[in-house]
Amino acid sequence: MSDPHFAAGAAYVKDRFVPIAEATIPVTDWGFTRSDVVYDVVHVWKGAFFRLEDHLDRFERSMAMRRLKIAEDRGRIADVLHRCVGLADLTDAFVAMVATRGRPRVFGSRRPADCENYLIAYAVPWIDVIPKDVQARGAHLWIASTPRVPDSSVDPTIKNYQWSDLTSGILEAHEEGFDTSVNCDAEGYVAEGPGFNIFVVKDGAVKTPDRGSLGGITRKTVLEICDSLGIPAAIAPVTRAALEDADEVFITSTAGGVMPVSRVMTRIMGNDRPGPLSMTIYDTYWQWHDDPRYRTPVRT
Amino acid sequence: MSDPHFAAGAAYVKDRFVPIAEATIPVTDWGFTRSDVVYDVVHVWKGAFFRLEDHLDRFERSMAMRRLKIAEDRGRIADVLHRCVGLADLTDAFVAMVATRGRPRVFGSRRPADCENYLIAYAVPWIDVIPKDVQARGAHLWIASTPRVPDSSVDPTIKNYQWSDLTSGILEAHEEGFDTSVNCDAEGYVAEGPGFNIFVVKDGAVKTPDRGSLGGITRKTVLEICDSLGIPAAIAPVTRAALEDADEVFITSTAGGVMPVSRVMTRIMGNDRPGPLSMTIYDTYWQWHDDPRYRTPVRT
Repeated sequence: MSDPHFAAGAAYVKDRFVPIAEATIPVTDWGFTRSDVVYDVVHVWKGAFFRLEDHLDRFERSMAMRRLKIAEDRGRIADVLHRCVGLADLTDAFVAMVATRGRPRVFGSRRPADCENYLIAYAVPWIDVIPKDVQARGAHLWIASTPRVPDSSVDPTIKNYQWSDLTSGILEAHEEGFDTSVNCDAEGYVAEGPGFNIFVVKDGAVKTPDRGSLGGITRKTVLEICDSLGIPAAIAPVTRAALEDADEVFITSTAGGVMPVSRVMTRIMGNDRPGPLSMTIYDTYWQWHDDPRYRTPVRT
Repeated sequence: MSDPHFAAGAAYVKDRFVPIAEATIPVTDWGFTRSDVVYDVVHVWKGAFFRLEDHLDRFERSMAMRRLKIAEDRGRIADVLHRCVGLADLTDAFVAMVATRGRPRVFGSRRPADCENYLIAYAVPWIDVIPKDVQARGAHLWIASTPRVPDSSVDPTIKNYQWSDLTSGILEAHEEGFDTSVNCDAEGYVAEGPGFNIFVVKDGAVKTPDRGSLGGITRKTVLEICDSLGIPAAIAPVTRAALEDADEVFITSTAGGVMPVSRVMTRIMGNDRPGPLSMTIYDTYWQWHDDPRYRTPVRT
């Protein structure tokens, strides 16, 4: 199954499997020129997808919400993802599925309904949104001065590529010497960061924002872990003040899992290292990867 | 100069000129996966660019604001645009310049500073945001229920591809049988539509929104035309009520110029045809295309 051409990753674009370096979209594709596109990312760890059905559920919902219709049904999408991982011969992988508006069938049309929507998918080696060495000491988190785009303008539960407000935060964070950033909304409530949800821990209880955020699958897993461990946890409003006053903070993403934060702006939490409750959740998160309920072994 | 391979359009991607059908970006380019990209569009009419320097000014500003640095300087960008139009042998054209973040030089990096930014450009046959037959009767305009993304979250004066709020409006407009849509902000002030600015005419005076909008070059031209014709004109707040109560409405875009609107929601303006002041401005706009101050003949 393994093929050296696919070592850097394997992709599927419009019915063809190609090495990742050859996977492209036209510069006139509306997925690019209007960011008229939805996506999802699932990870493979030790040869198995983690919560694949949850990711497929969310991807299908995102497509429906933006009225995107691709040729592949759910079973075929799953087949394509398996095949991409198989071709790239990856044991741990970052696996993307993308539905783009495509281009109008008639040149010059400005009607979304005239476009041929299509699926792109790819598997590449594992990516962490926070590098492993930074995870070990805990990330230093910047609070972006740019407000998160309101949910009423762009629904953040539809996984999308419109990251400008998040990128503004990242640019600022890096200039200030921080590892990453989180955006608050215009009312001062914490939302999310570039590619991750955020959690605050205070007096043994866990909270994650109820707005401006994707319904993360890792977030969902953490809430279930808290439930199973008897840790009080809620999706609820989180003020900027609560973030700055937290006992512990961690972020969650399919691309990396549970990642501790040790500093928020000038505040140093605990002993400037990942907090104990964060590490308990981190450990459990990786233990759950062995649970057959969540594992879908990659077909070879 | 003319080459049949380039008949559908000519593009420049990373130092190479290719037929438009071969102009692509990687599916992992951050210009796609984060919409981390700025662009501009200039038009060519009767063999000359219109206000090319204004477009280059705005493009350079957009890049600087997003900290995008491409290899080509301003002179080289202009050369590339001339060459694209020449290769495609177009007399009337839609000419795009795009600066994308690109990809990290090191796989897996999440740092914008690690990315290799680059220029894409292309010339394709003329496109109108409103088809000519619709322009003739006046467009039927829908007011989107989705609020425009606030300027504080995504600066609309930096020309960007993050059209989700605008696309939501278009999807709704087409479902309701309208030609196109305009978004208001959350406070009920009119902003812009997908790819155009909007103008309202009331009692002989012209207004265009002061927020939620690109600083359009066509918009600027219309304001200068008004000045030259002694028509009172201003960039000022425009309420939704003012739009619905206007005597005339027209939209402006590089992709089409000055385009009249005859209906706003259920309101029919004038005689359900383009208004007289709109048509005066329309005529003058096209006359100004012969003015050497604004013309840059395409080099052949």
